[in-house]
Amino acid sequence: MNLKYAVIGTGALGGYYGGCLAKNNKDVHFLFHSDYEFVKQNGLKVDSVNGDFHLQKINAYSSTLEMPVCDVVLVCLKTNNNEQLEEMLPPILHSESVVLLIQNGIDIEKKLATTFPLLTIAGGMAFICSSKIGKGHIRHMDFGSLNIGLFQGEGKEILKQIATDFQSAGVATEVAENLENARWKKLIWNIPYNGMTVVLNTTTDQLMKNPSSRKLIRALMQEVIEAARACKQDIKDEFADKMMVSTDKMTPYAPSMKLDFEAKRPMEIEAIYSNAIKKAESAGCEMKKVKMLEQQLCFIQDTYLPKR
Amino acid sequence: MNLKYAVIGTGALGGYYGGCLAKNNKDVHFLFHSDYEFVKQNGLKVDSVNGDFHLQKINAYSSTLEMPVCDVVLVCLKTNNNEQLEEMLPPILHSESVVLLIQNGIDIEKKLATTFPLLTIAGGMAFICSSKIGKGHIRHMDFGSLNIGLFQGEGKEILKQIATDFQSAGVATEVAENLENARWKKLIWNIPYNGMTVVLNTTTDQLMKNPSSRKLIRALMQEVIEAARACKQDIKDEFADKMMVSTDKMTPYAPSMKLDFEAKRPMEIEAIYSNAIKKAESAGCEMKKVKMLEQQLCFIQDTYLPKR
Repeated sequence: MNLKYAVIGTGALGGYYGGCLAKNNKDVHFLFHSDYEFVKQNGLKVDSVNGDFHLQKINAYSSTLEMPVCDVVLVCLKTNNNEQLEEMLPPILHSESVVLLIQNGIDIEKKLATTFPLLTIAGGMAFICSSKIGKGHIRHMDFGSLNIGLFQGEGKEILKQIATDFQSAGVATEVAENLENARWKKLIWNIPYNGMTVVLNTTTDQLMKNPSSRKLIRALMQEVIEAARACKQDIKDEFADKMMVSTDKMTPYAPSMKLDFEAKRPMEIEAIYSNAIKKAESAGCEMKKVKMLEQQLCFIQDTYLPKR
Repeated sequence: MNLKYAVIGTGALGGYYGGCLAKNNKDVHFLFHSDYEFVKQNGLKVDSVNGDFHLQKINAYSSTLEMPVCDVVLVCLKTNNNEQLEEMLPPILHSESVVLLIQNGIDIEKKLATTFPLLTIAGGMAFICSSKIGKGHIRHMDFGSLNIGLFQGEGKEILKQIATDFQSAGVATEVAENLENARWKKLIWNIPYNGMTVVLNTTTDQLMKNPSSRKLIRALMQEVIEAARACKQDIKDEFADKMMVSTDKMTPYAPSMKLDFEAKRPMEIEAIYSNAIKKAESAGCEMKKVKMLEQQLCFIQDTYLPKR
């Protein structure tokens, strides 16, 4: 079966992952916002550590109303824009479509499920350094693997097919048995590094080099592990220790929230922080330091970023 | 009895408090560092909300070796320089001198007492907005009261005399029955506002206006109250609520640590944060958020301020 793909939000993630599929001759339909006219003329360019490519002619759209119904919808928006999905999704869905949220944070699928209770919904975590560096121009700097998992609906088979499609397009992809567990694991990295690089105006390597911030990073990780455990998702302490080691080995890196802050875009505070804090709280666990980081980020968002 | 005063560190605090005493014809001897030559020529200028004054001729020194033995030593250095006291103090002390540390933080008297176990030591808390704006030139912007208390030795009578001298020089001064309690109370203000204005690069009024930072400020205050209680210093929750109200009424204000940061001077992290955290910890109380703030400040100190 040949799956028809929609990419909602063709930026750092959507441009790379959708671009890889399209380059490998998959049937991919891309939704663009401000880059639409440019891409219609010039196509999509991806500068990648795995090899640059340029898709001269792609299926580009400026509204989902013009797009065909698809089997798989890759949502690659920032979570702050998810309220738009209520209007965007219906024109491209059939009864067995799966919507895959390749986004940061936790409990984002739950919110979509309240709007679309019968929809097959999955979540995806991208382990990637990439950014949009110009109109229709993506730079993929490092990593790139995907971890996808089912949230609700009959989607096990199609997720396997999606993984196979990504694999053959050169994207290492795993299907997670337990999506919530995988989302908590991703938060163990995202919660400390995203917020701390913004609050302290720095990069991952600086945070790891300084003994004080290094200890704080590890303590924040531990708080996430304990919150996950309270939510019945067992994660071992060693998982955090391994994250520390792998971050030590990374090239100096500004996480997505730092890039958003620098570009004066809204930060994904709700999906990454507030949702985790609420989830833990309702399981009886108070994330004291994470809450403090969330509050500092809210102050920064309200004070230093343009009002939406 | 006419007390002879030494002022060690004639800056924002020493210049104002010593200046008030000298203006009121007390016998005051000022130690200067880089401003010595200038003050010898031009005297000490204080622009104060209570009335400007200019002391054309003052007893100025560049070393305690040249100073007379004094009854009262007002230490108005930043706590980061307290290691210098071991050498500075002996030339100006007699057997009944009292050393009054007009400084921020907690457990700073304890450290001095280990070097001078027989010395009469007191602590002073200044509730004042003032800063040094030029050579021998102090600007006193608001408040100004002093709260002093005995730490060790036979100093009760002389503290009363000091309070009287300050009172008659126009400085509202109280003698605290319990120095440790008073120091914890001062920390309830100092711990949230000093650190948070530095980390979030802002002023007190901005922190109070934003709902997220406002909640965090109150939560930090609560952690200090609970640490004080663990150290057997009872402080009621309402004390923090009152601090919030009085800070709401303050003119927008950059606390001393923010001024130090902006002037690229070392910040008083140890006296204000590390000492409190250690003291609470040895009483079985973990200051989680305050520890996080301390670690963020250490990162900022190490990364953005010049190495000492």
